[in-house]
Amino acid sequence: MSRLSVVGGGVIGLSVAWRAAVRGRKVTVFDPSPGRGASWLAGGMLAPVTEAWPGEEAVLRIGEESLRRWPGFARELAEEGFDPGLSDAGTMVVALDSADAGHLEILAEYLKSLGREVEPVTGREARKAEPGLSGAVRSGLLVPGDLAVDNRKLLQALEKAARKRGVKFVHKELAELPEGEVVIAAGAWSSRLHPLLDGVRPLKGEILRLKPRRGCLPPPKRTVRAVVEGKPIYLVPREEGELVLGATQYEAGFDTAVTAKGVRELLEGAERVFPGIAEYELVETAAGLRAASVDTMPYIGELAGGVYAATGHHRNGLLLAPITADAIVALLAGEPVPDEVIAANPRERV
Amino acid sequence: MSRLSVVGGGVIGLSVAWRAAVRGRKVTVFDPSPGRGASWLAGGMLAPVTEAWPGEEAVLRIGEESLRRWPGFARELAEEGFDPGLSDAGTMVVALDSADAGHLEILAEYLKSLGREVEPVTGREARKAEPGLSGAVRSGLLVPGDLAVDNRKLLQALEKAARKRGVKFVHKELAELPEGEVVIAAGAWSSRLHPLLDGVRPLKGEILRLKPRRGCLPPPKRTVRAVVEGKPIYLVPREEGELVLGATQYEAGFDTAVTAKGVRELLEGAERVFPGIAEYELVETAAGLRAASVDTMPYIGELAGGVYAATGHHRNGLLLAPITADAIVALLAGEPVPDEVIAANPRERV
Repeated sequence: MSRLSVVGGGVIGLSVAWRAAVRGRKVTVFDPSPGRGASWLAGGMLAPVTEAWPGEEAVLRIGEESLRRWPGFARELAEEGFDPGLSDAGTMVVALDSADAGHLEILAEYLKSLGREVEPVTGREARKAEPGLSGAVRSGLLVPGDLAVDNRKLLQALEKAARKRGVKFVHKELAELPEGEVVIAAGAWSSRLHPLLDGVRPLKGEILRLKPRRGCLPPPKRTVRAVVEGKPIYLVPREEGELVLGATQYEAGFDTAVTAKGVRELLEGAERVFPGIAEYELVETAAGLRAASVDTMPYIGELAGGVYAATGHHRNGLLLAPITADAIVALLAGEPVPDEVIAANPRERV
Repeated sequence: MSRLSVVGGGVIGLSVAWRAAVRGRKVTVFDPSPGRGASWLAGGMLAPVTEAWPGEEAVLRIGEESLRRWPGFARELAEEGFDPGLSDAGTMVVALDSADAGHLEILAEYLKSLGREVEPVTGREARKAEPGLSGAVRSGLLVPGDLAVDNRKLLQALEKAARKRGVKFVHKELAELPEGEVVIAAGAWSSRLHPLLDGVRPLKGEILRLKPRRGCLPPPKRTVRAVVEGKPIYLVPREEGELVLGATQYEAGFDTAVTAKGVRELLEGAERVFPGIAEYELVETAAGLRAASVDTMPYIGELAGGVYAATGHHRNGLLLAPITADAIVALLAGEPVPDEVIAANPRERV
């Protein structure tokens, strides 16, 4: 069997490379900076539920199935010797006004209809669970099943596990596809590598990291999500005490400048939800490019003989890493992909 | 004559060292990071006028006299071969509400009574002069005489000029004063070095740097100042296109963490005054420690035989560098200090 080339060393490329190497393939990852890119800047929520919305069932299905695979994926990584930092602290979605509260009710009904465990709470109950929440929080939705992963720990764990399994890294950007079997996992840059990936485009996002200073209120125990003035924000606590605050979302081509407005809106939104953040130290501001797809479904499948897509994961790259890796490894072995991945076939979607 | 030790390599220490070396003294500057500290993070306004307020005549007098010396100081630096980046584009102070407008009228009357050139303008006239100003600007005060200096260019010019004149740099922090003649120019850390400097304390400030992205409105042509919700902000354009946005001000001991709230307030304030900044790239966030004094007057004078103070410059270190250097050089030579510096004598102020 020839070497497998993986173009892109974000969470998808690294997962594919590691899993393929575990199956005995010789793999080379091409990326000028493996472990960086959009994955490095993610919040790390593995949250198909709180991301879901009626009408996006295919996205929810693939997300739910990948979530189901996450604990096993994390365990296998840990067995390689590298902890991916998985947390099962859950999510609290909060409502700040009556429109938000209405949305939470719809979301709760929808999730219950899917058989998911959700617990609607009053503002007071929300603050009891998360004492730092603002008095302006009217109601909330507790989602105990939601997992989160420390994206940076995960990337480092994946790269180490891949290297341990013999994966080679070539630190350069490819202008065209290498010979032999290739997986395109180049995120926002994927459309440059194959015409069937024309629908993949950059979706800019700004994200901040904050750290409580001495005397500050501690970060929330679980992921906190809200919509402030029409803009979704999330606060994801990290084990070491940092708090990830994300994320803006807009079309700006390949621009990765951190804008004044993006930072201002994130900080304003976070203070509305969790006022104690005002006194936190702002330790990082960054912008990255998600690989957006038109319908938020990823592109996973064979593009042409021996050329595979594993890209366009929109906001869900970390969540969908296990199922994407499993699907690509199956395709490489001539086996069927998981059912939920069929709708992601790029040849059916042009 | 023995070597002169200067403790602190900010704008004051470097100015003193350079001027003393020009007069033939052998000088050593002690600073772990010369050219950094509060001076590195300053806006660079040389603005005794727009900083002035009735009742602070002594501060205004020393500021005005130092301003008068600034062009000569800059010219001598340029003659050494190093451009300090002096700008005479002036200042526009703007009012956003009727309370601000009232303050501007008082300030205008006060400055006129001091014989200063000021031009009250309507909101429309203000926007004609600075097209990026918000429609919310009600009125303004144009101060053509105000100078500004590129603080980073200045620090680099001063250090190079000092080195050219034989000044030596020792990159360490001193726990106690060295032997021989010493100038204490250690900014916020000065009180640790002499009991008469007990009144010098750190006054934290956060400051941002922004850069217009492609398609953005250009920065203002002159310094723009305003008070937004009780908090003063300034936008100072730099020749290379960056815009300095400052500054928060609060007592936080020696803490230099950039806080969420500080950044949010600066960005919010700036957008209120100059909305186009929203799309600028946020290229730097930083916090520094001004050397505050109780009455905003600096401490300049002999503390004890051969030990001199040149510190406590509050918000005015860059403005007061020329007169401070002149005063210290005069003291070292046994000559009288400029009249305006007499009120800064640390032995008269305990």
